[in-house]
Amino acid sequence: MNKIILLKHRPSGKPTLEDFKFSEEEKPTPKDGEILLKTLYVSVDPYLRGRMRDEESYIPPFKLDQPLESSIIAEVIESKNSNFKKGEFVSGLLKWKEYQTAAGNGLNKVNKEAAPLTAYLGVLGLTGITAYLGLKKIGDLKGGETLLVSGAAGAVGSVVGQIGKIMGCNLVGIAGSDEKIERIKEKFGFDDGINYKTANDMKKAIGAACPKGVDVYFDNVGGEILDAAMANINKFGRVINCGAISLYNEEKKPVGPRHEGTLIKKSVLMQGFTIMDYVKDFGPAINQLSTWLKDGKLTYSETIVEGFENIPQAFLDLFEGKNKGKMIVKV
Amino acid sequence: MNKIILLKHRPSGKPTLEDFKFSEEEKPTPKDGEILLKTLYVSVDPYLRGRMRDEESYIPPFKLDQPLESSIIAEVIESKNSNFKKGEFVSGLLKWKEYQTAAGNGLNKVNKEAAPLTAYLGVLGLTGITAYLGLKKIGDLKGGETLLVSGAAGAVGSVVGQIGKIMGCNLVGIAGSDEKIERIKEKFGFDDGINYKTANDMKKAIGAACPKGVDVYFDNVGGEILDAAMANINKFGRVINCGAISLYNEEKKPVGPRHEGTLIKKSVLMQGFTIMDYVKDFGPAINQLSTWLKDGKLTYSETIVEGFENIPQAFLDLFEGKNKGKMIVKV
Repeated sequence: MNKIILLKHRPSGKPTLEDFKFSEEEKPTPKDGEILLKTLYVSVDPYLRGRMRDEESYIPPFKLDQPLESSIIAEVIESKNSNFKKGEFVSGLLKWKEYQTAAGNGLNKVNKEAAPLTAYLGVLGLTGITAYLGLKKIGDLKGGETLLVSGAAGAVGSVVGQIGKIMGCNLVGIAGSDEKIERIKEKFGFDDGINYKTANDMKKAIGAACPKGVDVYFDNVGGEILDAAMANINKFGRVINCGAISLYNEEKKPVGPRHEGTLIKKSVLMQGFTIMDYVKDFGPAINQLSTWLKDGKLTYSETIVEGFENIPQAFLDLFEGKNKGKMIVKV
Repeated sequence: MNKIILLKHRPSGKPTLEDFKFSEEEKPTPKDGEILLKTLYVSVDPYLRGRMRDEESYIPPFKLDQPLESSIIAEVIESKNSNFKKGEFVSGLLKWKEYQTAAGNGLNKVNKEAAPLTAYLGVLGLTGITAYLGLKKIGDLKGGETLLVSGAAGAVGSVVGQIGKIMGCNLVGIAGSDEKIERIKEKFGFDDGINYKTANDMKKAIGAACPKGVDVYFDNVGGEILDAAMANINKFGRVINCGAISLYNEEKKPVGPRHEGTLIKKSVLMQGFTIMDYVKDFGPAINQLSTWLKDGKLTYSETIVEGFENIPQAFLDLFEGKNKGKMIVKV
């Protein structure tokens, strides 16, 4: 039998284990043109919370009583498709199933020799590409500028910081524990860090850490930290709205200070970044990230949880900040 | 004696006549290299409210007990500068004085034969240039798109609408009276209009007037109308934050729904537009606007108030929406 995980309820507020349902189905058999995949590594990501809502977005919502899906590394264990061979590894948006068949479109082969398989879910996957293209397409980051990053110890934030370092920027990261702040400074090259859970006044804390103001703010969290960043933004500042994890579990429309006055006074740009708008740029992005990884300019953290049955809990733990870097479940 | 108008108090909330002081000084005499200017037309603009605050912005604040200034058309009545002749007309940022001397830098000569002098304060001046460059530099407007404009009957908004029409867009304007809505449809070519003072639900009203959603929102007002526009914004929408008149008289930091979720979900760009960032683009903008004006593709409204002593009241009337198009004081 094949274990699968379905969406049982649409969460209200913070998701719980009750929102997921474990089930079994018969192990599938590939038809002509298909391959049989064995799930090896499952990426859990904050944006999945959005797909649990029944609302239109850049990607369709999950359906009730249907399997969830996310980025997965899988092994081809049987092939009836001449483009794939048994023993090859692929990455792609796949279902939360131990085994599944696929026609092959939308899957990318990954090379186990070039980098560890899990890197293709992180620094060489959607999170690394998000960091690179967000900075490039919206941030227009230049050497010598001050780059502020929230969620700096997270999968995206830690790559954003390292790219900022490669580009010669002054780097300040925001994260939720002193231990994370230490890590981003030691491991990812941040010049300074702010623990938002212990800072009394985030506006002042950012001002102190960024004495020349903030030129580019890479925002993974939204909410009050965005407000504090906006209070320190420079003329011609750019805000990359990449994530808003602080709001994802809110059921009411969240309220905060209006930013239009600052946008006008400081000629600031704010733009939402969604990686799926830039699919044609993935190739060059992965090439650049691979080169940096090979050259030792890029490093990464990951938290690997073991066991297919722990996928939902690993997802929930994201909202508690329990992960260091990319959260991955090894099946 | 020379009449002048000074800033007496920094307004708290809505400015009043008490914030201004009338005074007299000796009529100035030009030195070598200077010209003597007689003020003919004075532009009053919402953005001047910002300069009355003692805070850093893209343009320095007015000083207490010093003359205010704004865009003015003046006649050269005496010249000790070989670049200017007696009887020529100039436009520029000049002081609220009946007569003043100037060295000539920052002044542009205007041609009375090519267009009425007041046009150089409106459709061929900062307001027309703002409309043109805001749409071009931030809006990236394309034919067939839906363009929503707030303050649509105002000096900037009415030009924005007409440029949208020239570009073949679907045009919806927001203004504060049924009479203004009639006027923007009849005079400026808007396809539809919304009276925000009588609409029960601006979000629904915009949805009804823009059945294909909003591609570009040219925002002159900020606040709740911006929120309603954001609720109808399309994927890849662009918001030009040009003005926020609804907030200018607020003393507390205004609060509203957070937009970062919409920015991300819809890949929306919001950017503050300040004309002083684009001084090098003024020439081509004026050329294009002049051509459209000559070809009859562009028309404009203006409200002309008579009398130097009425400059402060004309400014206050802007916040009551008493003007039709550009508000100008004829001295």
